[in-house]
Amino acid sequence: MALKLYYDELSQPSRALLIILKISKIPFETCPVKLREGEHLSEEYKNEVSRFQKVPVIKDGDFTLTESIAILRYLSREKQISDQWYPKNSKAQARVDEYLEWQHNNVRLLCSLYLRVKWIEPRFFGKEASPKKIAPYESRMANCLDLFEELWLSKTPYIAGDQISAADIWAACEIEQPRLAGYDPEVGRPILSKWLNKIRKIPYYEEVHSRFNKMVGLEASGTQVKAKL
Amino acid sequence: MALKLYYDELSQPSRALLIILKISKIPFETCPVKLREGEHLSEEYKNEVSRFQKVPVIKDGDFTLTESIAILRYLSREKQISDQWYPKNSKAQARVDEYLEWQHNNVRLLCSLYLRVKWIEPRFFGKEASPKKIAPYESRMANCLDLFEELWLSKTPYIAGDQISAADIWAACEIEQPRLAGYDPEVGRPILSKWLNKIRKIPYYEEVHSRFNKMVGLEASGTQVKAKL
Repeated sequence: MALKLYYDELSQPSRALLIILKISKIPFETCPVKLREGEHLSEEYKNEVSRFQKVPVIKDGDFTLTESIAILRYLSREKQISDQWYPKNSKAQARVDEYLEWQHNNVRLLCSLYLRVKWIEPRFFGKEASPKKIAPYESRMANCLDLFEELWLSKTPYIAGDQISAADIWAACEIEQPRLAGYDPEVGRPILSKWLNKIRKIPYYEEVHSRFNKMVGLEASGTQVKAKL
Repeated sequence: MALKLYYDELSQPSRALLIILKISKIPFETCPVKLREGEHLSEEYKNEVSRFQKVPVIKDGDFTLTESIAILRYLSREKQISDQWYPKNSKAQARVDEYLEWQHNNVRLLCSLYLRVKWIEPRFFGKEASPKKIAPYESRMANCLDLFEELWLSKTPYIAGDQISAADIWAACEIEQPRLAGYDPEVGRPILSKWLNKIRKIPYYEEVHSRFNKMVGLEASGTQVKAKL
């Protein structure tokens, strides 16, 4: 039975897992979930897919697992993931893990909160998003991206050292996200910009981001995205 | 050269790591860091211990690692951690990982934010903490603790299933934390309460929590803790 991946390409960790699965040539069945239509909030999804009502989720036979980083580690044991992306060497693996744990309450949290307040809530929940309301979220995200650049990219070409790894994929997918709300993470951050454009050259990165990038383009041109793409 | 642990017993993940190290009989050198005196913010700490300026941190020879969960996994490979706490079986390990990844933006974030707004900021940064300001933080934490109980404890006796694991230690240490600000996580949550009191019986749990519990007692008796204990 093939591995099943429940995902939405608009979800950052879904994109990261899609890239890892494709680049590792792991066969999987695509199970797209329309977050904007609330498919993940249905009773059916809760009962049949995941009690967490989120994406991404995998089903490997009768084993269901959520949390993209737990899934990455599970796949590294159960399937073939190249050492480049998730090293078997204990210290090298610890360096990748160190970032993947750090990012939750930094890059992931602050980029997501900004997007939520500036873009998701006004679009889908009818909440106002005044410049005054957005400002502290933007400021905290900007400080975090500065910190990310300083802590993770100022001494080494990639997050976990001299070699590219899954940490770079997870980070890049998160850092793309605020572009949907008109924020360019590359402006004023030359080191981050150079790094991000290297990561964008990973096979499947642009393919997996194509729907997301189309939405960014539509938003930038003034077309508010509400309908299904 | 012995493993060094930089920690403060008032930090939740420091306590979790202390318990794991002690229970696993892993020899280590204690390097206490006084968070309330800002020792972690010094240039010396930044340059000599960790550029992240946080605890916990380990030094294993010349290898420095931050992030408690990355450290737990590193120790499970490099030292002897019983299978009970961090299973070698792939699916069982994934269940522990699933919680450890989930908790970052749930139990950890929301209990920490509540403590920060209600207790840390008024005590140490002179910020006001009116009931109106605290209410949304308390409400979000309470909802999260309800969700924790439902998602992780309603079907199985322990977080990752029928067996106790590191996930229970990490969770319990976080859930103790708001007690410092007068919030009892057990009230109205019989399942959580029963589970927490089982986890408190783990060897070294109460020993590692003794300084923290002393502070909780002082706060409850009306003595604001500012001085070094």
